[in-house]
Amino acid sequence: MTPILHEHAASGNCYKIRLTAALAGVAIERREYDITAGETRTPAFLAQVNANGRIPVLQIGDRFLPESGAACAWIAAGTPLIPSDRFDHANMLRWMFWEQYNHEPNIATLRYWTTVVGLDRLSEAQLAQVAGKRAGGAAALALLEGHLVDRTWIIGGAVTLADLVLYPYTSRAGEGGFDLSPHPHLRRWLRQVEQLPGFIPFT
Amino acid sequence: MTPILHEHAASGNCYKIRLTAALAGVAIERREYDITAGETRTPAFLAQVNANGRIPVLQIGDRFLPESGAACAWIAAGTPLIPSDRFDHANMLRWMFWEQYNHEPNIATLRYWTTVVGLDRLSEAQLAQVAGKRAGGAAALALLEGHLVDRTWIIGGAVTLADLVLYPYTSRAGEGGFDLSPHPHLRRWLRQVEQLPGFIPFT
Repeated sequence: MTPILHEHAASGNCYKIRLTAALAGVAIERREYDITAGETRTPAFLAQVNANGRIPVLQIGDRFLPESGAACAWIAAGTPLIPSDRFDHANMLRWMFWEQYNHEPNIATLRYWTTVVGLDRLSEAQLAQVAGKRAGGAAALALLEGHLVDRTWIIGGAVTLADLVLYPYTSRAGEGGFDLSPHPHLRRWLRQVEQLPGFIPFT
Repeated sequence: MTPILHEHAASGNCYKIRLTAALAGVAIERREYDITAGETRTPAFLAQVNANGRIPVLQIGDRFLPESGAACAWIAAGTPLIPSDRFDHANMLRWMFWEQYNHEPNIATLRYWTTVVGLDRLSEAQLAQVAGKRAGGAAALALLEGHLVDRTWIIGGAVTLADLVLYPYTSRAGEGGFDLSPHPHLRRWLRQVEQLPGFIPFT
């Protein structure tokens, strides 16, 4: 039974799951949706795949698992990508929650608004948030840079899901107007992820 | 070695951890910060406790664990609050991520803006987000109601961290202007949490 990834390939949240599957050696099928055409808001999608109207969703048999971090956790279960040590495990989750709360809503959203919606087509409510998201995203990147000064990987000595979920939108932060050039440790860490055996690019 | 919770007691994200500790039978010490006075943004706090300037942070010996979901996971490790089944475990994480992405930024933020900041004192950028957060929070509550129609607990037959992290801000949604009266299954589920042996109220 091969899991099916319901996704939009250009979404970093979907790429996280493909990257985790590639590094964990787990085969997945892919089913593409056009989010700009509302294909994840149809009655059928809401009833069967995700009542929240969002991708990615990982389908395992007849069960559906929304939320990228949860899908990564299912795929990587039992592999070294998830530490078994009690503190390391919780610390990995800490960075996965932080990514979804402090990093993705700023950096991924500005990338989407810049490259898909168009900054000149934002609603007033969106426009009012641009400055806050720019500051929040820059702060998130600076925090990561400081964190990586004396660490090889996000939670220490080995690559975990924390690295894999932070890689996609950090690597494309430039598309949302962020500048990684002042962050050498962050750029070194991005290259490390790209050199992992089995790495697949974000395309 | 008793873990120390660096917290602001009125924060639902901090209460989640106290509730998890109470139900898991794990003793914790508490250290209170006045977030409105900037006590989590001091140079000492940023350097030692959390570079992100936020509480809660769970201190375990000389190591610090920010993010409420991560702290709950550390505390509940090895207890039935965290399912061992591969799908159930990932499904628990799914709701924990959803809470931080779709529920807390709408429902908790509107509660904070209403009860602490004051809706008449919001910045223009905050004011521009009120309507979106009201709609997003209402949608999150409606999604939970639909999910609980045919389920006892969030992920099925037993209480898990998914219930404990969703309880705090759902139970106080009214303080942010949300109405739970159209959601009987949600109200039934709130009462169930309150009847768990060892439950402590959000005070």
